Amino acid sequence: MENGGEAAKWRFGAANPALQAAGRHNIRSLVHDLYDCLDKTDPRPVVPLGHGDPSVFACFRTAAAAEEAVVATALSGKHNNYARAAGVEEARSAVAAYLSRDLPYEVTAGDVVITAGCNHAIEVMMAVLAAPGANVLLPRPGFPMYESRAALCGLEFRHFDLLPDKGWEVDLQGVEAVADESTVAMVIVNPNNPCGCVYSYDHLAKIAETARKLGILVISDEVYDHCVFGSKPFVPMGVFGATAPVVTMGGISKRWMVPGWRLGWIAATDPNGILRDRKIIESAIGYRAISVDPATFIQGALPQIIANTDKAFFENAMNVLREAAEICYHKLKEIECITCPHKPEGSMFVMVKLDLSCLDGIHDDVDFCSKVASEESVLICPGSGLGMKDWLRITFAVDPPLLEDGLERVKSFCKRHGKPRR
Amino acid sequence: MENGGEAAKWRFGAANPALQAAGRHNIRSLVHDLYDCLDKTDPRPVVPLGHGDPSVFACFRTAAAAEEAVVATALSGKHNNYARAAGVEEARSAVAAYLSRDLPYEVTAGDVVITAGCNHAIEVMMAVLAAPGANVLLPRPGFPMYESRAALCGLEFRHFDLLPDKGWEVDLQGVEAVADESTVAMVIVNPNNPCGCVYSYDHLAKIAETARKLGILVISDEVYDHCVFGSKPFVPMGVFGATAPVVTMGGISKRWMVPGWRLGWIAATDPNGILRDRKIIESAIGYRAISVDPATFIQGALPQIIANTDKAFFENAMNVLREAAEICYHKLKEIECITCPHKPEGSMFVMVKLDLSCLDGIHDDVDFCSKVASEESVLICPGSGLGMKDWLRITFAVDPPLLEDGLERVKSFCKRHGKPRR
Ligand SMILES: Cc1ncc(COP(=O)(O)O)c(C=O)c1O
Ligand SMILES: Cc1ncc(COP(=O)(O)O)c(C=O)c1O
Repeated sequence: MENGGEAAKWRFGAANPALQAAGRHNIRSLVHDLYDCLDKTDPRPVVPLGHGDPSVFACFRTAAAAEEAVVATALSGKHNNYARAAGVEEARSAVAAYLSRDLPYEVTAGDVVITAGCNHAIEVMMAVLAAPGANVLLPRPGFPMYESRAALCGLEFRHFDLLPDKGWEVDLQGVEAVADESTVAMVIVNPNNPCGCVYSYDHLAKIAETARKLGILVISDEVYDHCVFGSKPFVPMGVFGATAPVVTMGGISKRWMVPGWRLGWIAATDPNGILRDRKIIESAIGYRAISVDPATFIQGALPQIIANTDKAFFENAMNVLREAAEICYHKLKEIECITCPHKPEGSMFVMVKLDLSCLDGIHDDVDFCSKVASEESVLICPGSGLGMKDWLRITFAVDPPLLEDGLERVKSFCKRHGKPRR
Repeated sequence: MENGGEAAKWRFGAANPALQAAGRHNIRSLVHDLYDCLDKTDPRPVVPLGHGDPSVFACFRTAAAAEEAVVATALSGKHNNYARAAGVEEARSAVAAYLSRDLPYEVTAGDVVITAGCNHAIEVMMAVLAAPGANVLLPRPGFPMYESRAALCGLEFRHFDLLPDKGWEVDLQGVEAVADESTVAMVIVNPNNPCGCVYSYDHLAKIAETARKLGILVISDEVYDHCVFGSKPFVPMGVFGATAPVVTMGGISKRWMVPGWRLGWIAATDPNGILRDRKIIESAIGYRAISVDPATFIQGALPQIIANTDKAFFENAMNVLREAAEICYHKLKEIECITCPHKPEGSMFVMVKLDLSCLDGIHDDVDFCSKVASEESVLICPGSGLGMKDWLRITFAVDPPLLEDGLERVKSFCKRHGKPRR
């Protein structure tokens, strides 16, 4: 019973429609809902192929040097304070130097904004670009945080396709077809989540030419930078920053396998200073000033994290990922109702097509994933969450034996639910 | 020179008007601009009375137990992963237990959402409440992050006054006067930034009655919880949660003196479950799912931070703050053109009135602060940033000798610029 006499009439509780619209692209909840489908009586371990978080497996433990760097700043007593909106100066410089290694020009600390993970970088950039009437072009399949944050700040978004038959390259004609006078930017993700592809130098050059022709900037999400284990090297989009201005976004979540540390960045990789002239970085800092911050001592540790992590750590991580990608690719090949159009060569994901016609009583990708969760304790992200109905996104950044076990279970699931052959 | 032949016509760079509007309330930039006024040739130390960040002073070093807790989770390898949108479960439970200590009912983990600092809690709640046409009532003077975030998500805000002659109590008649059918919430800050007051049990009861009458919820910003050193105890607003639903927001930034750790929370302190029925916490978690997260290992450390910090740490911190508040109050009394209507008894701030009629050639509070910065290397936040033109906000959470030095410099500044007496 409420006290205070007569029952009160409460006026709050109506929903924010922008928040509802943004929530529709919420992959985190989508994957999360699958947890509710799990059968708690199944004695087998749950196999998490739904979202990429290798950090929970011992074989993907981060570098000792990274942990030590964070411990040192946490114990220094010198990094407990509020940081400046653009980020801790030493962290900005460290990112500038880190990116400059792979670029034909120097990025400076002033070109860099530190963020609370690459998700925060996405949030900042969508807010910066949300001028009235403006639109951005997003890849399909993609990473739904872009759609969520654009929806939340009223920035229109349009999709261009990634082409499964062309190694998931960007459909550049499609980009030109959806762009108009109000288009301000296009987003690429390279190495690519969810497709597992790595864009070649030539393809990136063509993307830059298209952006130039359209007069738009390229946002290059390189949170999987250097996460390559096939034949193609990682080429940063910033290499083409003189053709079209590039905003490079990244972070330590993936390469250092510490997504829980929440450290990322935005960098103007734009040797002609067009982003500076248009006040893009200034505006990003302005947004950061009224937004959240990554922990100061983790920012403070970044120079040492970068400097002290040895090559062996990265090599080992790539070897395990390569092995896992192989297992994943070969296991998937054994499953009749699943087609993998492109062998993964980077990032931690692969996008595969579900052939529902071979399956009995499975309505769609979401239904498939719910049933695989409940019958096999395997979590897989339905493609609808990424704009690709009846596809699946599978992460292979999982302890290899567990990955193999999980895919074996998917295989027996598909067999069990397979249509009797004529 | 750009390559690629003909000069391109770039289409991006138009400003986001919501971001511009939000930026107008950006106190961080305001205080920051004062840094540019500093005279680098002044050999005296800069005295930062502009924003509250005691963590930079040795006398306010956080508890060793808190540092140890964070180091332990950082080294465990078990908290490098992405956390759930509501926050790490142990952290939610720890906050629930922490708040329950001072309440006549139990808060549960399900009532709690972990945020990246209390600023993030503000962001989340403004987004949750931003239904079309809704408005929230904010205190004047206040904490401008509320205005910024409300502006950014299109939530209308209206101000009610805090009354300097009544110990900065809420002008409850004023609240009723500005509220209408579309008002959904009112915000209070207790202990109060910027006024340094602490609300009594009776005043909080009246606030709850007013909220009940209006049918609105109370957002109680208690980031300075237990930060009291006068005669009044800290009473959480949640004590009155049965009269009107209360959303309590807090964090470890202030009490543990670690604003750089970026850990805060939102809690439904509402024994009648009205916030649950209206899906306020659910909606907050929905926003968190498409927003940033605090570092997982810092969340993981929260139970130990709370459990292992001994009373002596808090007592010592309050003793230093009490001493600093005394110094501040007495020093300010010696300055003729400054009036302090209420001796600070909580938080880390005091609001004082500037009498420009005693000063020569000082136009307003911003001019005063710029000149004090350049001539005396003392940073003070102009009241205009908080909706109070020709007032000043001064923090006393500064090493006491430095605080005394700084206020002595303000005193000589005022003497030097004083109008000759008739
Ligand atoms: C393409 C892409 N961008 C951004 C992010 C977010 O990265 P962070 O963990 O640094 O926020 C992810 C995480 O999975 C991602 O896949
Ligand atoms: C009233 C008030 N609310 C919220 C905050 C933000 O706290 P946090 O550092 O936890 O983000 C502050 C910081 O000064 C504050 O004074």
